[in-house]
Amino acid sequence: MLRFYNGRVLSMHGDFEVHEDYEVWVQEDRIFYVGPALQAPKAGNKETGGSDFDGRFQEEIDLKGNLLMPGFKNAHTHSPMTFLRSYADDLPLQEWLYHRVFPMEDKLDPEMIYWFTKLAILEYLSGGITASFDMYAEPEANAAANVEMGFRTVLCGTLNDFKDSIPTLEHFYQKYNHYHPRIRYQLGCHAEYTTSEGLLRELGALAAQYHAPVYTHVSETKTEVEQCRKRYGKSPIEALADFGLWEYGGGGFHCVHISDADMDIMREKGLYAVTNPASNAKLASGIAPITAMQDRGIPIAIGTDGPASNNCLDMFREMFLVTALAKLREEDAAACPAEKVLSMATVEGAKAMGLLDCDCIAVGKQADLIVLDLHQPNMQPEHNIVKNLVYSGSKQNVSLTMVAGKILYREGRFSVGEAPEHIYETVKIMCKRLEA
Amino acid sequence: MLRFYNGRVLSMHGDFEVHEDYEVWVQEDRIFYVGPALQAPKAGNKETGGSDFDGRFQEEIDLKGNLLMPGFKNAHTHSPMTFLRSYADDLPLQEWLYHRVFPMEDKLDPEMIYWFTKLAILEYLSGGITASFDMYAEPEANAAANVEMGFRTVLCGTLNDFKDSIPTLEHFYQKYNHYHPRIRYQLGCHAEYTTSEGLLRELGALAAQYHAPVYTHVSETKTEVEQCRKRYGKSPIEALADFGLWEYGGGGFHCVHISDADMDIMREKGLYAVTNPASNAKLASGIAPITAMQDRGIPIAIGTDGPASNNCLDMFREMFLVTALAKLREEDAAACPAEKVLSMATVEGAKAMGLLDCDCIAVGKQADLIVLDLHQPNMQPEHNIVKNLVYSGSKQNVSLTMVAGKILYREGRFSVGEAPEHIYETVKIMCKRLEA
Repeated sequence: MLRFYNGRVLSMHGDFEVHEDYEVWVQEDRIFYVGPALQAPKAGNKETGGSDFDGRFQEEIDLKGNLLMPGFKNAHTHSPMTFLRSYADDLPLQEWLYHRVFPMEDKLDPEMIYWFTKLAILEYLSGGITASFDMYAEPEANAAANVEMGFRTVLCGTLNDFKDSIPTLEHFYQKYNHYHPRIRYQLGCHAEYTTSEGLLRELGALAAQYHAPVYTHVSETKTEVEQCRKRYGKSPIEALADFGLWEYGGGGFHCVHISDADMDIMREKGLYAVTNPASNAKLASGIAPITAMQDRGIPIAIGTDGPASNNCLDMFREMFLVTALAKLREEDAAACPAEKVLSMATVEGAKAMGLLDCDCIAVGKQADLIVLDLHQPNMQPEHNIVKNLVYSGSKQNVSLTMVAGKILYREGRFSVGEAPEHIYETVKIMCKRLEA
Repeated sequence: MLRFYNGRVLSMHGDFEVHEDYEVWVQEDRIFYVGPALQAPKAGNKETGGSDFDGRFQEEIDLKGNLLMPGFKNAHTHSPMTFLRSYADDLPLQEWLYHRVFPMEDKLDPEMIYWFTKLAILEYLSGGITASFDMYAEPEANAAANVEMGFRTVLCGTLNDFKDSIPTLEHFYQKYNHYHPRIRYQLGCHAEYTTSEGLLRELGALAAQYHAPVYTHVSETKTEVEQCRKRYGKSPIEALADFGLWEYGGGGFHCVHISDADMDIMREKGLYAVTNPASNAKLASGIAPITAMQDRGIPIAIGTDGPASNNCLDMFREMFLVTALAKLREEDAAACPAEKVLSMATVEGAKAMGLLDCDCIAVGKQADLIVLDLHQPNMQPEHNIVKNLVYSGSKQNVSLTMVAGKILYREGRFSVGEAPEHIYETVKIMCKRLEA
């Protein structure tokens, strides 16, 4: 049993209340107790829920008044793309993608993907992210990196006309949903514009077979939507819905250029919109209509997108961008308040990914949590801690990141089975091999 | 003499080259040597510039391959407004300003301003900011906080119809330009819409008397520009130019809603545009035309604006926003490249504020510098260090902040004469007094 005490807890369990002097106890990978210090379980006392508790703690962590809260969920990323960080920025989108990104990706091998994923995981941990929704090739290399480092990921299918097939996708779906407790797999395809109608319909049939949600990039750019309209006379969301992709829900990554009709479909199908504001801004794709989607009750999660386009994997930056860009788009300083954004980055992210036991701090949930240092100048004064987090919070405030009950990052140091320098050096060697 | 060795140096002295294995030596408050380790001065050897050097170092800092560069210059802020952080967010602009901000500000006293400024200085240091251009009431309290903590500030005049006068401004101008080596003062008024034509013309005359630049908020919101056009039949920049404000240069804070004619004036008068992207987004004011200004050769600096509107004082966030919003506005992923942004945040910021000896790392310049930890996952791999800084850099990377040769922040610890907790606690007490 591990005990956090003398802290404040933002459980995100249905509200945004910051509980003073709460304790959180963690047993194995789950939360055993969350509540006032005075009401904490006694050893062997069944009535107070302490039946499993023998009165001994393996570790007791004094939070010193700092904040314990659920970890951030990065609901759309391409982790292995760390190798392209700062490799080709400030270029027009097409040149960036076709002349810089794709040629490098063609040369990747599983070993590289394994190491590049590890680098991303370090970055997630240093920023308080406890799970990723990761879309990339070579799921085995990706899964191995995650398992070894103690991280949690939901792998997302990448079906398209050039890579993978329905049988492969089904194989991955079965394999990675029975691979390791911290690994899951969701059906997905790259995008409408890279996947034929026939293949999309087959994907819909596969989803129906497993009663499974499906995820894909959708309506990221104006061009993408225009080309889809030429092809099918419909928007990507309309076309994909027609092809039977979303009979069991799922979600769209980006959702920048969506219409009212698209939003009706998303609501009807229970789709998540996973917004990627930094990437959409940096690639000049546009600003997603967050407020309009919220008004219609479409659930929203937040992703960093991959480090080739963003370029960092920092949910604090994304949170500020979600609300700041919504305010700009709506010309309304009251648009998209901080509480909604924090929920998107945590609870809603977990739900979007299907991680229903990782969403908040409550008994029985997975112990995927972070501690934020409130004794830093950007967190003072404390008029409103939630607004402080969203509007002035930074990775610098992350003092501890725990995934499935294990502390993987604490006070700037990683506990992931190997030294970060070894990962940096290996990534450097792999990058040189790629550029050779 | 203090010696930084075994590091990389981005001097920003005319280029963006990252020099490998450079050393930087600091004597008192100035840079004594910057260059290759092998060519460093020898004790008493005049030919190599080592005449002042007795061969002894007070301190030698192993940079371990990390990056030494000029500190960030926060070219527009209202430091004492830390007390309003997260006090009134997600509100419409008018309600925020008139019903929340102004009533609280009316109750401020110099002691409060002194402490609230101290809190901001802690935040600057933790984010690698080495100077602020600070516009607020009670310059004495502000200056005292800066002097005591070892920080550098340029105070900016706040003349308007309700507060201050031309004689007061002149008094401040003389006093704070002969107050302390780290304190300067620039003439300024709050804004066109709060200052009568008569007073503005008198300010222009004062500027002419001292051959001094003048700074002011300008064209932050659409409403402001519309009202000025009603009043004078001109934009704020046109009107202020007509009133003789800028015969000796200066600059405008915000510059969001500016026309081609405005830009012509700015270029002709040599005005700086100080952009405040986070504040302009959060208050839904708009996106400044950075690219258009750059194309016309208008120099640009970056400010955080005050913590009531931003809410944090983080130049990494501002840098990303400058380029990301420019890319969105221009619908061009190549707009406003990273190098230009980094220059705005450092060299151009210093010039905008009149800190001509604090702009870059060169012999004889003030030792206002920072060390960034490149051994963190967001800085890996190192395809391009400048792009890494702008696109994936974070306050978390700041491992050392030096102002005028003194290390004020290092590895998360402050050396500012008092414990940060004492400042936090005092700010809390002052806030309670304000809300009483």
